[in-house]
Amino acid sequence: MARKPTSDSTRRSEKSRRAIYAAALALVGEVGYARTTIEGVAARAGVGKQTIYRWWSSKADVLMEAFLDLGAQAAEQAAGQDARPGAEYAVPDTGDLAADLKSVLRATVDELLDPQFEVPARALAAEGVVNEQLGREFVTKLLEPQLQLYVQRLRSAQDAGHVRADVDPRIALELFVSPLAQRWLQRTAPITHAYADTLVDYALHGIAPR
Amino acid sequence: MARKPTSDSTRRSEKSRRAIYAAALALVGEVGYARTTIEGVAARAGVGKQTIYRWWSSKADVLMEAFLDLGAQAAEQAAGQDARPGAEYAVPDTGDLAADLKSVLRATVDELLDPQFEVPARALAAEGVVNEQLGREFVTKLLEPQLQLYVQRLRSAQDAGHVRADVDPRIALELFVSPLAQRWLQRTAPITHAYADTLVDYALHGIAPR
Repeated sequence: MARKPTSDSTRRSEKSRRAIYAAALALVGEVGYARTTIEGVAARAGVGKQTIYRWWSSKADVLMEAFLDLGAQAAEQAAGQDARPGAEYAVPDTGDLAADLKSVLRATVDELLDPQFEVPARALAAEGVVNEQLGREFVTKLLEPQLQLYVQRLRSAQDAGHVRADVDPRIALELFVSPLAQRWLQRTAPITHAYADTLVDYALHGIAPR
Repeated sequence: MARKPTSDSTRRSEKSRRAIYAAALALVGEVGYARTTIEGVAARAGVGKQTIYRWWSSKADVLMEAFLDLGAQAAEQAAGQDARPGAEYAVPDTGDLAADLKSVLRATVDELLDPQFEVPARALAAEGVVNEQLGREFVTKLLEPQLQLYVQRLRSAQDAGHVRADVDPRIALELFVSPLAQRWLQRTAPITHAYADTLVDYALHGIAPR
């Protein structure tokens, strides 16, 4: 990450940082990624553009961290406690794999339907589809770290004998994550908690008779 | 579809139609959906813009049909025979569900990796993510009819006892289609025939021990 936190004026900095995140997310949602500029974000946040350049090296960096912060805030609200950045999508391990996956997937449904997340996330995702460099940065910094949390949970399930040892966890997670992502991104059909539960059940037990 | 074929000069019309499709696909891949215009397509195809308006009512209509035609051409080449428009992704029914799904999914991998398809398809998909009206038209006219072919194949598999009767075919198909779509659209990981096969196996038999 390109953010370089200053050691002085921490409270004032924190306030500016949050204002910059909010401005960046609002702007990208309104005008799209291509027309979002550091100058525009600075003006909307009420800070000088040097304040932004002191902490981030590009608009892509500002946006990536704004999304990480949004996720951390959502997790904080949900958990009622401080959340570590990047830990917002931690998959619980209660020993009941189906229940754990459903709980995280249901929370993802809620987030995807929250306009505060949805509008800027769509703008960034759309740009990532045609702008390969941004798309790869988006995947490396935001998406893949979340998917790796599912990999860890599925590995632990393999150790417990709840997932077959010959299954590749990185592919397996896509059976329930990707359908949700496609319905949301391409608006192919509605997303609900019941749908999330069905995906997990089908992925675990398959659609062929047992 | 908005195309209104003329009954005279059929051969000349067919040539113009193909030139217009090629121009529309090339242009949208180069400059994106928003900056593609009927005028630009007409100029590139070497026809008057009235020729385009005689057959289609909007640039979205031209593009949708250009993609349908591209798929039909690909199927024609693959099958070595005339293909009906819209039938390009017909799922075979040999009685072996896994083999049938793998054969179609492998062909989809090949199409997604073909630059002639990939570049314009990405441009249209990206616009569909942020432009809700176009996105819904894209899904209704292009994507959902293809997905319904999987629904039919899965229903026939249910009749044959190869898929559980309580499974919803419209959700089940997403277990192997959506992961491929997401890897392609968001470039989260490479797509290969082996990957397509793995998705079908996991979807049919699940990842939990049997």
